[in-house]
Amino acid sequence: MVAKILPDRGGPIEGMGEFDLIDRIRRITGPSSALMGIGDDAAVIDLGGPEVLLATVDMQVQNVHFGIEQYAPADLGRRAVAVNLSDIAAMGGTPRHVLVSLALPPDIPATWVEELYQGMATEAGDWDADIIGGNISRIQGPICVDVIILGSVPPGEVVPRSGGRPGDLLAVTGSLGNAAALRSAVEHALDLDDLASPEWIASAASVHPRVREGRVLARLHLAHAMLDLSDGLAGDLQHLCRASGLGAEIDARRLPIDDQVWSIAAALGLDALDLAISGGEDYELLIALGSQDAEAACEALASVGLHVIGRLEPAAHGITLLDWTGRRHSMPPSGWTHF
Amino acid sequence: MVAKILPDRGGPIEGMGEFDLIDRIRRITGPSSALMGIGDDAAVIDLGGPEVLLATVDMQVQNVHFGIEQYAPADLGRRAVAVNLSDIAAMGGTPRHVLVSLALPPDIPATWVEELYQGMATEAGDWDADIIGGNISRIQGPICVDVIILGSVPPGEVVPRSGGRPGDLLAVTGSLGNAAALRSAVEHALDLDDLASPEWIASAASVHPRVREGRVLARLHLAHAMLDLSDGLAGDLQHLCRASGLGAEIDARRLPIDDQVWSIAAALGLDALDLAISGGEDYELLIALGSQDAEAACEALASVGLHVIGRLEPAAHGITLLDWTGRRHSMPPSGWTHF
Repeated sequence: MVAKILPDRGGPIEGMGEFDLIDRIRRITGPSSALMGIGDDAAVIDLGGPEVLLATVDMQVQNVHFGIEQYAPADLGRRAVAVNLSDIAAMGGTPRHVLVSLALPPDIPATWVEELYQGMATEAGDWDADIIGGNISRIQGPICVDVIILGSVPPGEVVPRSGGRPGDLLAVTGSLGNAAALRSAVEHALDLDDLASPEWIASAASVHPRVREGRVLARLHLAHAMLDLSDGLAGDLQHLCRASGLGAEIDARRLPIDDQVWSIAAALGLDALDLAISGGEDYELLIALGSQDAEAACEALASVGLHVIGRLEPAAHGITLLDWTGRRHSMPPSGWTHF
Repeated sequence: MVAKILPDRGGPIEGMGEFDLIDRIRRITGPSSALMGIGDDAAVIDLGGPEVLLATVDMQVQNVHFGIEQYAPADLGRRAVAVNLSDIAAMGGTPRHVLVSLALPPDIPATWVEELYQGMATEAGDWDADIIGGNISRIQGPICVDVIILGSVPPGEVVPRSGGRPGDLLAVTGSLGNAAALRSAVEHALDLDDLASPEWIASAASVHPRVREGRVLARLHLAHAMLDLSDGLAGDLQHLCRASGLGAEIDARRLPIDDQVWSIAAALGLDALDLAISGGEDYELLIALGSQDAEAACEALASVGLHVIGRLEPAAHGITLLDWTGRRHSMPPSGWTHF
């Protein structure tokens, strides 16, 4: 969605910042008929039914988001759907229907397209959603896989980015930095045999949309604000703070980081904190919780784990990080590496 | 939508036919939860509200569907939205909301993006729809403009492709071959000064989605089946016949063809009938009407014109064309040129 208008690995349009471009587009599109539109994980539309409609779209572009050698087509298909499911999860919604728009070079084998669809249908089916339509265009250039997901949520249970309150605890599902660590290991041709199990590697290579977790938090009214971590904690926290008009403090010592991320970072001479904060592609949920709700939320999400990593502060506080020694740094959206 | 899975100017995937690929994908995606899914102009979804939801998506790819020099960005934006509005119109629906997914090379000027959005917002606004979200991805390659439109229609008024009945009259809105004639003139650098007015040229260069006309026919229950002409009459008629399980006969002498198309065809040594039948990009509606309803339908659509051009026949008849002399030819989906 436009909130992620220029993804972590995409460069700016002629030097423009992400928010600048969103704001320019928002000025052009004018006030929206959607309950929530440009700037959240999904648009929220009231069509007069029992639930409000959620709509989100995200494109995977060859050589920007994926390499043709990097994924089997079925895995790419799963991924292209999963990153959109993650956006529906971040609104507290249930995914319902998938549309697929492909741009394909004419020499792509038909079996590749079939396997891509197979992966997309499997990922959608895992969440009781299905592919209901789409389009295929020819392109002389990279493969583009654009996925649209329609979901729904009871109107009182929508969780926006903007609902955070000062004093709310910030929590994340799962653990951070796995995708970034694996990506770094592959880029540096690091031998992972002694560092990570095949199961951990397979998990780090996949997107696990937190659909059940987002839904539970929404249904129990435990989340004031929520978004999914696609760009990396540093960047996405900025989105939540900006939408909620607040600042935040993150405590590095409380970040959930797998042992394998520490090991890979050490082997590569990287900073594990950097991988966890600005690596991106975690697709975990970042949640603002009332402080009295944290225990209930952690209990409800015990199976994947929910970790309190900081708190929302008044805007004047800015966005800060307590490092390993408890020293406070300001945290730019580009993350730790750019301190 | 997938019904137009490989558009007129896009080649096949490694020698596969359009229907073959649709059928393969349909086998993979399985039975759909949508009331109508893959294979119609838009997917139809019942979310329990007063109207059913329509969803359609279509991508414009640089150097396949447009050249960067061919359109001002605002005109391209209008067009990208209009071709999707045409799909909503073909279902009898009202467009409501637009999502936009862009893939942009990093060196594209921000003003180009703004003007594109301006055009999209203007076209959507002309039909009381609005842009509610989207996404921008980076691409090292051609610009891709993917537009998703959500619309709605009362459940009893959805007009599918499959509703045609033997003996139904076939009618089209407006006139045919204008876009193809203009495209041919530009390709051959034909001087149009004496052949067509600036107004006709501007009109032929634009897409005029027949939203009002589709809606009127649906509301009055005058259309048994309907689709929009994007690939050209010959190809799209095949879609309607296939969906309805019928054949058809078109009478060349009844096709609405503007004088300008005749003039341009004559100047270029082309066949005007070919432009009208297989030129494509007309974005007029092709409608199957009960024979008793034709007069009412023509009256209701007097402002843009509705012309009866043939009738639906039993499947065994095949799809045929009566030429200028009344001689009957079989008509392949590739159109007149390939007789």
